[in-house]
Amino acid sequence: MTEAAPLKLKKHQDRRLRAGHCWVYSNEIDTAATPLKGLDPGQAVDIVSDQGKWIGSGYANPNTLIAARIVSRDRAHRLDQSLLVHRLKIALGLREALYPAPYYRLVYGEADGLPGLIVDRFDDQLVVQLTTAGMEAVREKVVAALDKVLNPTVILLRNDIASRTTEGLEQVIKEAKGTVPERTQVMEGGGRFQVSLLEGQKTGWFYDQAANRDRLMKYVAGKRVLDVCSYVGAWGVRAALGGAAEVTCVDVSAKALDQVEENAALNGVADRVRIAQGDAFATLKALRQAGEHFDVIVVDPPAFIKRKKDMKEGNLAYRRLNEVAMALLGRDGLLASASCSFHMDRDTLLRTLQQGARHVDRSLQLLEYGQQGPDHPVHPAIVETAYLKAYYLRVLPTF
Amino acid sequence: MTEAAPLKLKKHQDRRLRAGHCWVYSNEIDTAATPLKGLDPGQAVDIVSDQGKWIGSGYANPNTLIAARIVSRDRAHRLDQSLLVHRLKIALGLREALYPAPYYRLVYGEADGLPGLIVDRFDDQLVVQLTTAGMEAVREKVVAALDKVLNPTVILLRNDIASRTTEGLEQVIKEAKGTVPERTQVMEGGGRFQVSLLEGQKTGWFYDQAANRDRLMKYVAGKRVLDVCSYVGAWGVRAALGGAAEVTCVDVSAKALDQVEENAALNGVADRVRIAQGDAFATLKALRQAGEHFDVIVVDPPAFIKRKKDMKEGNLAYRRLNEVAMALLGRDGLLASASCSFHMDRDTLLRTLQQGARHVDRSLQLLEYGQQGPDHPVHPAIVETAYLKAYYLRVLPTF
Repeated sequence: MTEAAPLKLKKHQDRRLRAGHCWVYSNEIDTAATPLKGLDPGQAVDIVSDQGKWIGSGYANPNTLIAARIVSRDRAHRLDQSLLVHRLKIALGLREALYPAPYYRLVYGEADGLPGLIVDRFDDQLVVQLTTAGMEAVREKVVAALDKVLNPTVILLRNDIASRTTEGLEQVIKEAKGTVPERTQVMEGGGRFQVSLLEGQKTGWFYDQAANRDRLMKYVAGKRVLDVCSYVGAWGVRAALGGAAEVTCVDVSAKALDQVEENAALNGVADRVRIAQGDAFATLKALRQAGEHFDVIVVDPPAFIKRKKDMKEGNLAYRRLNEVAMALLGRDGLLASASCSFHMDRDTLLRTLQQGARHVDRSLQLLEYGQQGPDHPVHPAIVETAYLKAYYLRVLPTF
Repeated sequence: MTEAAPLKLKKHQDRRLRAGHCWVYSNEIDTAATPLKGLDPGQAVDIVSDQGKWIGSGYANPNTLIAARIVSRDRAHRLDQSLLVHRLKIALGLREALYPAPYYRLVYGEADGLPGLIVDRFDDQLVVQLTTAGMEAVREKVVAALDKVLNPTVILLRNDIASRTTEGLEQVIKEAKGTVPERTQVMEGGGRFQVSLLEGQKTGWFYDQAANRDRLMKYVAGKRVLDVCSYVGAWGVRAALGGAAEVTCVDVSAKALDQVEENAALNGVADRVRIAQGDAFATLKALRQAGEHFDVIVVDPPAFIKRKKDMKEGNLAYRRLNEVAMALLGRDGLLASASCSFHMDRDTLLRTLQQGARHVDRSLQLLEYGQQGPDHPVHPAIVETAYLKAYYLRVLPTF
């Protein structure tokens, strides 16, 4: 790697960084003094204020809007294997204290002081995503550090994510250590699930909702449950394990529903888990026309708002889907409604749900709110680290 | 009671109501058509739009900023004993489904469709607050309805709250049924607590934090815990029950601390619960000067911001108290920081905590967020029903 280059900020552009954020946007840099042009993507940099004061070290990418990310605010430590090992141990300390078994997101990028790095742990198998050129530049050190701290049997690079293209990196899925089995087991909330690390969505399992699924359990005993956009059945099968009388999992993917059935059987609840393949909107409307009612409905769709410009349309999609879900609930029902769209903020989602409720003539009582689980900690100074929202709403006739 | 009077809204002033809110401000009323003057405080009213369309029935107070509250949007039902019984049963249904024992807020005003009514349940003893003239006007019906639905041994009116003065009501504590014992028992999270319904703060127990105390339990086993503004020890004694190695409860009230000791003894954890009487700021500073460190600190102060004009000063108080708490944590500590000030919004509190962290050179990881428990449901269209915030933050050296 080339030597660390200085990046000088324009006046006042150190404020957000001093408040705790770690991103430097390209227009915040005094490019007359320290040109971005000529830097290698991922090159190590020192961030200094307009007064020449050292703020932190990190890495740059001259081709992205986020031109640099701070990794260390201590001159004695830079992004190297020793820092990686140290930060991994701090991250591991949190998860080991909170999780009864080694199934969790081990590293959540910026919030764990490792911008550009995601690591999901499935016992002795690790799935890694290097999302920035800066982290890609130290890929071998990342692998070595993970090996040193955890000595896993498998390290899989699931570097098939859109953001890498922006960073100028290739899309690639590659085993950095060991061989990935066809199926990998996840333990969650007393249940066992089979997932595919190579072919599953994202890293194979949505650990971010685990704590929210825990929250659901108190509402499901003896109930008729509908799991909308079920994927491989994490909510639905857990609801059955939690004592639901009957669970219906709806998903557009027949392959995902095959895994729902596999997972239901694995947990001995196949007799209480049905599947319904189809588009969520269409399937819910059909259920409604058939006069079906449910006691508990989980609405956990994929991100309807991926970019800011999708906001209006995405908002409407959240509203419509939740509206038809509310209409499918009985007189005293529970709606668990989630959004993983960063651009759908918490308050807007709640307002959208309330609008939907009024439209179908229901009153809501918000009972609980859940964010992403503690293995996806939020960095209070980096709003971009908070994206998941889950509302638990009692749905009643209007009062 | 006098007959229901019509209250006509000005143009467009029905929008918030149609969106689900139930408050009508005095300046939203077309007082030329329907004068407020001459209405009795608490008088039954019908709210109609400027077009003459009936919106709902409720009650009015000509002397308050909130001139009327809607109780029913169904012409067939008005605020009478039958409606009270019906709404109480709906409220009870939620609590019975979620709570293993009859200790909870049974009625949370607007969010339970009963504006102006608060009922806390301690098994067969009920503590009632009538906060508006409209609910006071049906006091006997409220008592009769509670009697009918729950047949409690005690109904205590704890009508010693500031808002009643604004409503033109007297401050009064009175038994409407039975005799209140000197001590009443509360069961929470496997612990037992003695409280005084007649003399305790508010209704005697802060049920709103029960779910947040549950959340704390996963962090306390084997830890050294500091409970700041402990009141009668709900957090602290529960932490000891949850396996904390040592708990220190700080409160300014010697009387509250006597009850901490009583409650610690009652739960067999007196050997692990210490008390420290004094102002929170001064006591924490003294602990810091003595070189003490804790693994887990709970900061759950009384509302520092009671009115909007206290915001700046209150903000600073939250920041200072949390800052000294963070400084008292070891290298990898947990701060549970709460605010019950409605005017301290969620985002501002988190920003304040982050500012404090930077000031004492710490990095934060937000692990969990809790609102008031499900027995204090939030009405999504009535922001005033949401007031409690609790953040669980891992506090680390700056990275």
